[in-house]
Amino acid sequence: MIYDLTNTQYVRMLQNLNGILDKASQFAEAKKFDMGVLLESRLAPDQFNFTRQIQILCDTAKRGAGYLTGKEPPAHPDTEKTLPELRARIASVISYLGSFSEKDYADAATRKVSQPRWEGKYLAGKEYVLLHSMPNFYFHLTTAYSILRHNGVDIGKKDYLGAMPYKS
Amino acid sequence: MIYDLTNTQYVRMLQNLNGILDKASQFAEAKKFDMGVLLESRLAPDQFNFTRQIQILCDTAKRGAGYLTGKEPPAHPDTEKTLPELRARIASVISYLGSFSEKDYADAATRKVSQPRWEGKYLAGKEYVLLHSMPNFYFHLTTAYSILRHNGVDIGKKDYLGAMPYKS
Repeated sequence: MIYDLTNTQYVRMLQNLNGILDKASQFAEAKKFDMGVLLESRLAPDQFNFTRQIQILCDTAKRGAGYLTGKEPPAHPDTEKTLPELRARIASVISYLGSFSEKDYADAATRKVSQPRWEGKYLAGKEYVLLHSMPNFYFHLTTAYSILRHNGVDIGKKDYLGAMPYKS
Repeated sequence: MIYDLTNTQYVRMLQNLNGILDKASQFAEAKKFDMGVLLESRLAPDQFNFTRQIQILCDTAKRGAGYLTGKEPPAHPDTEKTLPELRARIASVISYLGSFSEKDYADAATRKVSQPRWEGKYLAGKEYVLLHSMPNFYFHLTTAYSILRHNGVDIGKKDYLGAMPYKS
């Protein structure tokens, strides 16, 4: 299930984010302001701005895939300044996650996961998924969403969740 | 794993929320304003306010436990107006989730989950967890957090995530 949680579902949410970015871009065009204003927006003066939220979101997704499968995730230097650059970053993460299949995650639950700033400490893969990766992923996605919502972009829960595959 | 994802972890995040509410309450006292101002705050005029975000968060958690185990979740009439009332709602959901054990979730992945407003349609339990319950839970939790953050409450990612059980 870790594959579904941190790969398939992250890709799905990143694709939904692309739709949200479309709406943000249309809003900036309609109101005739520079999209960069939204990219630099934040909800508090000591909070990361929209661009940084997306960068961290992307890192959370790619690190999940790398760490949980025992591979080194690709580096991104955090130089994005424009919407097309942010979109390219998201696309590169979607592509990276798409390069894995469920069997790559066979040992994910018990794999030791560590990040450089954890100073040698680690979490078991299952704990990392539950306590760290998912709460962080949704945190930065929703914070990015909230920054746009606060600035008047016409987005709602459906844009965030995407269509549900209801059965009857 | 569905038990860990939607029960243990939701309880953990709701306990972290209690700490966030402590900080919000201390902020209101220090600044000498009525806590009700924060409870009625929102990030956009057509967004649910803080109180409603917490009510929906609580409903998402309790419905997850009920629907995934084949039980009818308890009703809450959405009448909370004060912080103690909101705390009581959170406590009641933590207590409800605590009444389940992992074996209650044995059939959760394949159980048909439906909500009244889905008009008879359903999701399989696993889809409900992945696509609906978790994205909604973290959405409303982070939105509530963002409303406080935007209003100056001194909270950060650690308050949201809680302490990580790092091993060395």
